[in-house]
Amino acid sequence: MASPEQLDLTARSGRVKHARRLATRAFRDRTGEFLAEGPQAVREAVAAGVVLEVFATAEATQRYADIVAASPDWQVVEPEIVAEVADAVAPQGMVARCRTVVRSLADLDLAGARLVVVCADVRDPGNAGAVIRCADAVGADAVLLAGDCVDPLGPKVVRSTVGSLFHLPVVVERDVPVAIAAVRAAGLQVLAADGGGDLGLYDPDLDLAAPSAWLLGNEAWGLPPDRRSLADKVVSIPIYGRAESLNLATAAAVCLYASAQGQRALDPPVQRP
Amino acid sequence: MASPEQLDLTARSGRVKHARRLATRAFRDRTGEFLAEGPQAVREAVAAGVVLEVFATAEATQRYADIVAASPDWQVVEPEIVAEVADAVAPQGMVARCRTVVRSLADLDLAGARLVVVCADVRDPGNAGAVIRCADAVGADAVLLAGDCVDPLGPKVVRSTVGSLFHLPVVVERDVPVAIAAVRAAGLQVLAADGGGDLGLYDPDLDLAAPSAWLLGNEAWGLPPDRRSLADKVVSIPIYGRAESLNLATAAAVCLYASAQGQRALDPPVQRP
Repeated sequence: MASPEQLDLTARSGRVKHARRLATRAFRDRTGEFLAEGPQAVREAVAAGVVLEVFATAEATQRYADIVAASPDWQVVEPEIVAEVADAVAPQGMVARCRTVVRSLADLDLAGARLVVVCADVRDPGNAGAVIRCADAVGADAVLLAGDCVDPLGPKVVRSTVGSLFHLPVVVERDVPVAIAAVRAAGLQVLAADGGGDLGLYDPDLDLAAPSAWLLGNEAWGLPPDRRSLADKVVSIPIYGRAESLNLATAAAVCLYASAQGQRALDPPVQRP
Repeated sequence: MASPEQLDLTARSGRVKHARRLATRAFRDRTGEFLAEGPQAVREAVAAGVVLEVFATAEATQRYADIVAASPDWQVVEPEIVAEVADAVAPQGMVARCRTVVRSLADLDLAGARLVVVCADVRDPGNAGAVIRCADAVGADAVLLAGDCVDPLGPKVVRSTVGSLFHLPVVVERDVPVAIAAVRAAGLQVLAADGGGDLGLYDPDLDLAAPSAWLLGNEAWGLPPDRRSLADKVVSIPIYGRAESLNLATAAAVCLYASAQGQRALDPPVQRP
């Protein structure tokens, strides 16, 4: 634990400038750092052991003594500084500079994995965050962001994961076939979620109990043929009404819960306390 | 069908000004009108018979001859006019002024309904739109936006529904207990989706095959006790990992597909063509 301190102005201004530059992906990639904003995200980041320093208002410092106690480096600053560093409209007086939690495929151990999500070319931060949150909810083993995906360390994605970013391995792999090869090598069947699938999600021929990786495509154009062909099966969520499709995050939720239920059919459901 | 025309400048400027004011909820409420933006939404609005006039660029007019042919009043305008009227960054050269598709509870016929969504105090446009889209996907009979919800005719909601706004009845009812009384009077059980539920979604004691209305709460604070107490059962989606909860739209998707599957257990799944 560090005691809350006031740095001299020059040192502080350098740190603030550095933190503010983490708004861009290029600087995040270069430094291997990103920002967690608001007490909930900062608390999760602290628990994950990735916080480098926290900028917080005096008010937030007083209010969140538990986070102060657990943080390595705590800077008490004016509210304007927090607002300047943070992307969120209301960062609730707190923003933390963190070491990356994203790993490369080489650092991912998929031994024993039974449920994995592979997003190909997902661009919308809110969708990517909701998928990571949902993967966490079903107890998935990892989320792979493959191809040309949004940066999972961007502020909107971090916010949309509501802490789940810190709960399960998130991997960035530019090469989609390489990502698919890795999950297949771990013994998972690869199921592409796509409206044009030849198998329905609830079709008895689909073995939902088997260890599976769900391949999800871009929010606008889905999975082109060369992506679909990477999968063992192309699976459609049945549409009973007149909607053309579901959005990416809701489709992911339906597929992941179907797999989780299939895999846990013999287990009693786990209730939240 | 109207032939594409150029109005004189004064008349056009009055129409454009009127359309632009539909960006505010107050003006939408007063006029009973709203905007559909982009060819996909305009095409759906035309099919629903609610289009009053379309503003489109010459390029879009040429490209979407099918929409021109079916529209009652078509104004060819400069791209700047479309950009000025539309909320979307890229309205693809087309925006339509439409008569409201939202109805009051008194105009909703729930006879024979078996799946309804009641949103209480949902504020986020993207969430509300995704829930309407998902309700359409499962073939739900209606979506009721109850309490202090976002306006379903706001441009972001319309966009997020991807046409589903025009596919099923959407009702606005400020009084949540009145909305719940209406679905209960139609013979539906009321299931509140809430993390603190005493029954799991896949619990065999939950009769998912029965006609049901799902009550969903606000994206930030969920369902307070006075809302939960309106339900027959409070149901939790099981969380197998470390996520605290799901976001509203993904939770809605999981609950609605569970009900749809429960109700259609004896039907073969319907595949999209």
